[in-house]
Amino acid sequence: MNFSESYTFVLEMTVRDYELDYQGIVNNANYLHYMEHTRHEFCASAGLTFAQMHERGIDPVLSHVEIDYFHPLRSDDRFFSCLKIARRGPRFIFIQDLYLADGTPVVKARITVACLENGRLTRGDVLFDAFSKYLTEV
Amino acid sequence: MNFSESYTFVLEMTVRDYELDYQGIVNNANYLHYMEHTRHEFCASAGLTFAQMHERGIDPVLSHVEIDYFHPLRSDDRFFSCLKIARRGPRFIFIQDLYLADGTPVVKARITVACLENGRLTRGDVLFDAFSKYLTEV
Amino acid sequence: MNFSESYTFVLEMTVRDYELDYQGIVNNANYLHYMEHTRHEFCASAGLTFAQMHERGIDPVLSHVEIDYFHPLRSDDRFFSCLKIARRGPRFIFIQDLYLADGTPVVKARITVACLENGRLTRGDVLFDAFSKYLTEV
Amino acid sequence: MNFSESYTFVLEMTVRDYELDYQGIVNNANYLHYMEHTRHEFCASAGLTFAQMHERGIDPVLSHVEIDYFHPLRSDDRFFSCLKIARRGPRFIFIQDLYLADGTPVVKARITVACLENGRLTRGDVLFDAFSKYLTEV
Repeated sequence: MNFSESYTFVLEMTVRDYELDYQGIVNNANYLHYMEHTRHEFCASAGLTFAQMHERGIDPVLSHVEIDYFHPLRSDDRFFSCLKIARRGPRFIFIQDLYLADGTPVVKARITVACLENGRLTRGDVLFDAFSKYLTEV
Repeated sequence: MNFSESYTFVLEMTVRDYELDYQGIVNNANYLHYMEHTRHEFCASAGLTFAQMHERGIDPVLSHVEIDYFHPLRSDDRFFSCLKIARRGPRFIFIQDLYLADGTPVVKARITVACLENGRLTRGDVLFDAFSKYLTEV
Repeated sequence: MNFSESYTFVLEMTVRDYELDYQGIVNNANYLHYMEHTRHEFCASAGLTFAQMHERGIDPVLSHVEIDYFHPLRSDDRFFSCLKIARRGPRFIFIQDLYLADGTPVVKARITVACLENGRLTRGDVLFDAFSKYLTEV
Repeated sequence: MNFSESYTFVLEMTVRDYELDYQGIVNNANYLHYMEHTRHEFCASAGLTFAQMHERGIDPVLSHVEIDYFHPLRSDDRFFSCLKIARRGPRFIFIQDLYLADGTPVVKARITVACLENGRLTRGDVLFDAFSKYLTEV
């Protein structure tokens, strides 16, 4: 499948065995790690790293997460971590879906991010400027 | 606050510093770890450990997660991880809310769990028997 | 066994199932998490939290680790995380041994910690003052 | 630097921000994760995955670890995880050194691995056959 037709950013990743739990499948919490790493790589590709934001006093934080789990990842699995981004008032919505190479959906998530500046909620204009050309409708 | 009036199971926990990220707050994925540990402790208190279930070929897996993040946990924070459980057809819904001791909500989540037996989705009757006296309405 | 006769600080802990890997045993890296948490709890009990040290520009960092693995921890295992501390020039040596309740050794480690102040290696005098009454010979 | 001249296997990796702790540096335990992943990738490249070994009842486990920490990794750092392997009686010694691209050493470790078959310590002949052409002196 050509994921980059449907998503703004696609990161190919491989399961690391320490991410598996005693059931032999990736532990449920690690999908949030995969998605966080994908958001950070996307932001870096858009010219704005989280380290730079943090130094400027800007800290994006999660306000809401919804995840559907479809197909558990196992040892050696390669997968594609795909991302789209939209604006909802002062918040960002990241659509983050993971797939196997053959198109099997692994998880589908909707991650809502708010923007703190020096600890206070803001309209996130710095990020909107950086992301404006990537915003889609959801 | 008396959390055990409103919830079936309450586990008191403390933030461990390795759970913090560079923002000085608990990383978003670790709340799923706290909640998984609370579900497992609840099941053990109900007489059914995950290790025992796994040996009998029964593997509960997450099918859907919704989390609202209200107040980030920081170093040294103590918190109460509270749980209620309900049935929704063949699935379990765990209501899992975390609070500071003064009642400040930290996260509120609704975790939907399906039950695999030897890799196939089942009606989860073994677990319903074990949990029947704990089931509430949601 | 009475671990507090042989060690300065003892923390009772329980395995959390998300710490297990596909082999059904606690992943090797998590023992470093257990030991870090034990050091931080010890420091807090000695009146000096890592968060306070960090705010004052003091950051203890590991310089050397040696671990012997004797007996893998499994689901539901309770264990005792025991600690002694010694001085070696400008560094601290933490002797950190984990045991099952019956005295079976789990891991034995020697953790060498150096002290950075504002990013530079120091003699760690702030910590020596705080820990002086706990120092032992190794 | 050309790391593949001095090591048997080299894996290029990038820090993921969830691996950082509140000090803004990679948490000490995560280096064991990096090294485990590198060993597993090396074994897969040698034709023997850990998942396959586990299905055949073979479980390599750590018996001893020594790590020297030289230079902490930070956000966005790329690094090279390098590996050599030697035999010491019935055990394997993995020499595992991490470097920045300019050759700055990050950590240097010596990981001793024993081989369990169906839970009992063995001479590890299956692994020696697989790794014989990679063995070096240490």
